[in-house]
Amino acid sequence: MEDTLIFVEKALELISQRRFSALKEYVSEKEPADIAEIFEELEPEQAVILFRLLPKETAAEAFVEMDSEEQIDLIKKFSDRELSAVFSEMFFDDIADIVEEMPASIVRRILNTVSPDMRKTVNELLQYPEDSAGSIMTTEFVGLKKDITVLDALNHIRRVAIDKETIYTCYVIAKDRHLLGYVTAKKLLTSPLDAVVGDIMDENVVSVTTTEDQEEVALLMGRYDYLAMPVVDSEGRLVGIITVDDVIDVIHEETDEDLAKMSAVTPVDTTYLKTNVFTIFKSRIPWLMILMVSATFTGMIISKFEHALAAQVVLTAFIPMLMDSGGNSGSQSSVTIIRGLSLGELEFRDIFKVLWKEVRVASLCALCLGLATFVKILLVDKLLLGNSDISLMISAVVSLTLFVTVLVAKLIGCSLPLLAKKMGFDPAVMASPFITTIVDAISLMVYFAFATTILKL
Amino acid sequence: MEDTLIFVEKALELISQRRFSALKEYVSEKEPADIAEIFEELEPEQAVILFRLLPKETAAEAFVEMDSEEQIDLIKKFSDRELSAVFSEMFFDDIADIVEEMPASIVRRILNTVSPDMRKTVNELLQYPEDSAGSIMTTEFVGLKKDITVLDALNHIRRVAIDKETIYTCYVIAKDRHLLGYVTAKKLLTSPLDAVVGDIMDENVVSVTTTEDQEEVALLMGRYDYLAMPVVDSEGRLVGIITVDDVIDVIHEETDEDLAKMSAVTPVDTTYLKTNVFTIFKSRIPWLMILMVSATFTGMIISKFEHALAAQVVLTAFIPMLMDSGGNSGSQSSVTIIRGLSLGELEFRDIFKVLWKEVRVASLCALCLGLATFVKILLVDKLLLGNSDISLMISAVVSLTLFVTVLVAKLIGCSLPLLAKKMGFDPAVMASPFITTIVDAISLMVYFAFATTILKL
Repeated sequence: MEDTLIFVEKALELISQRRFSALKEYVSEKEPADIAEIFEELEPEQAVILFRLLPKETAAEAFVEMDSEEQIDLIKKFSDRELSAVFSEMFFDDIADIVEEMPASIVRRILNTVSPDMRKTVNELLQYPEDSAGSIMTTEFVGLKKDITVLDALNHIRRVAIDKETIYTCYVIAKDRHLLGYVTAKKLLTSPLDAVVGDIMDENVVSVTTTEDQEEVALLMGRYDYLAMPVVDSEGRLVGIITVDDVIDVIHEETDEDLAKMSAVTPVDTTYLKTNVFTIFKSRIPWLMILMVSATFTGMIISKFEHALAAQVVLTAFIPMLMDSGGNSGSQSSVTIIRGLSLGELEFRDIFKVLWKEVRVASLCALCLGLATFVKILLVDKLLLGNSDISLMISAVVSLTLFVTVLVAKLIGCSLPLLAKKMGFDPAVMASPFITTIVDAISLMVYFAFATTILKL
Repeated sequence: MEDTLIFVEKALELISQRRFSALKEYVSEKEPADIAEIFEELEPEQAVILFRLLPKETAAEAFVEMDSEEQIDLIKKFSDRELSAVFSEMFFDDIADIVEEMPASIVRRILNTVSPDMRKTVNELLQYPEDSAGSIMTTEFVGLKKDITVLDALNHIRRVAIDKETIYTCYVIAKDRHLLGYVTAKKLLTSPLDAVVGDIMDENVVSVTTTEDQEEVALLMGRYDYLAMPVVDSEGRLVGIITVDDVIDVIHEETDEDLAKMSAVTPVDTTYLKTNVFTIFKSRIPWLMILMVSATFTGMIISKFEHALAAQVVLTAFIPMLMDSGGNSGSQSSVTIIRGLSLGELEFRDIFKVLWKEVRVASLCALCLGLATFVKILLVDKLLLGNSDISLMISAVVSLTLFVTVLVAKLIGCSLPLLAKKMGFDPAVMASPFITTIVDAISLMVYFAFATTILKL
């Protein structure tokens, strides 16, 4: 990404020197994503000057790559004619994406400016539920009839290519718009020109419906290595396609969301540096509050066994280690299972396979940790650090507690995400913070149970 | 994914009934990724029967999608001729991927069976460092000379397409194999047949070198919406391309690795259900051991302040809440920053921007949590639950500690990943478990400092 940085700096220098023709030449041929970065650094007045310098298509492509903030600034400076020109260069799915993020007044201006056809399609795209296949598809695909020849198909592509998001997968559709199959551009280019499309098409085509979750679409496209996924309505009619570049965005977006939830943060859809302090605060504080209040239980458990702790204050020294080991053991399992679920590698029906595997892994881990702690307490804490309050029995209580805690933590860690999925919740919420809170309470109860029995407190 | 399940079950039924011609017809047209799933359920004897039923190309494609285990089973059953036939249908990058996972004896057999050209290329691909652009690229791209016409180019594509991994981006190369630019198949299909490739090519082509990290390649391809990324050697000569389907695998792989490290697990490159218990155990136990032993510090801090705890046992009840809130606050920040780093949205040079943002977010969070805890302790713990040991001063000590802990945790959480990146370590290791261990120690020291000063213990 260093190249982008150098490019942006050079462009900014040319702007500050008002060397516009050199700027135009320098910028015009570059990648739209890089050009968009220049706009981030400009005042609206400068931005609109640069925008007018760019070739129409490049300008539109760069516009698509900008953040909503810069898009709004530019739109405010555009004449209606400019606005219409920019949007007429874009694909429908990009327009729908942009419009979704805009304030109502700007949306109205955009929809009033674009052609009636475009307005209709964008309005339709906007009606699909968030994160559905319909909401990320575009309607600009190449549709072919089954009885035309390869030559006809190639001529058709030549005519319409400019307005289509991809020409590399063409869809063969019946008169009633039902999806019959597909032919790739590669197939068309390597088949005899007089072959009939219906004969060379691949009828085995995986499609999704408009209401399918975008995460599922991303999994299917990764699985089948498609460059585009056809989207059909509830009656099986082809209504759009989702291209692989949009799917890569979906994958990143879904990972962002999972990671946020796993670390007890409400997902925010802007990048960190662009998100304002109060938005970040709001995404974090509710979870911290909930988890803080739920620690009341651990407090109650400790209060209940105050007499035991008062009699053997040394027991307190091991509480952090027991709690952390439990939390770490649990989140190792939960994160592994959450990831398996979101990659479609695991389903609720695998719960017994998962439990059986985790029981064995957990037993091994618990045994190792329990033994290691027993030895460590006696050698390091007692002998080396000279803590004379430590006895063989105390070491045994701690080790046994650790053994049980690790075992229980792993079983809870692996089963909660599966149960959450089954009940229709997002498994990602069942990660470290949540598991830790539960495991803390359990490990303390086990600790005091062993302490009171073995040490007779 | 339900469809796949039904498909596999139906195929298995046909196999068990030995209805091979029905099986052949049912299976042959399906997606290779789905066909590969059938093999997972079969004994090697049955697997080789099914494999022989499939059309050659489908068989090879399904083979690529299988797990190493099933691939090894099949190879053992293959004659040399079959082995050679299967591999001759594959792309070089897929062969290199497969060979990498095989035991040495099988690798020797594969390399002895394939053509000398293929052996040479595969050997070259195997020499690139793991996770480098070179290791995931394929050498099967379409190269065009700049002085040929569009018609020549289309005819060339028609001839070579079958052996190329993609024909949708063609690379224009000089005599010395330097990369000059690219033309897309779309451009070729929509340009006059007598246009010259050199005139219509796009010279502004982003490429990577063979040693570039695959994660960076994935970021660049996502940024520029490329279907293929050209890979050049240190002298700028085009040596291969990386296609978008392989990049999607890279994205998943890198996320898997980050997630594993974030939850204190050594990454394993097989799916959970296929990984054996001992491998999972080995990926988890070292981290649990390290974190368990490092909790010795928290134990030492508590031991040192035993007299304070003995005088006011009620202080112990708040230790879990303080530690967990600190850990959660820290990991909220660290996971956000780690993600920003791996998406290339953040760099070390942003550290002051990040710190300034986190100071403000942390202050807000710390203030809210501190006040909420103060009120909660007095209302819930003292009044509602009737814990008479709690005084106004104790509540103040806990709230102040929480305030400082949250503040410190967030600053540590945001800066450690950035520092790790700067020093060349993987930032993902600086997630919850590691941060928690540090924050635990700090929060306890702050706690006892406030306790001894304010409560005069």
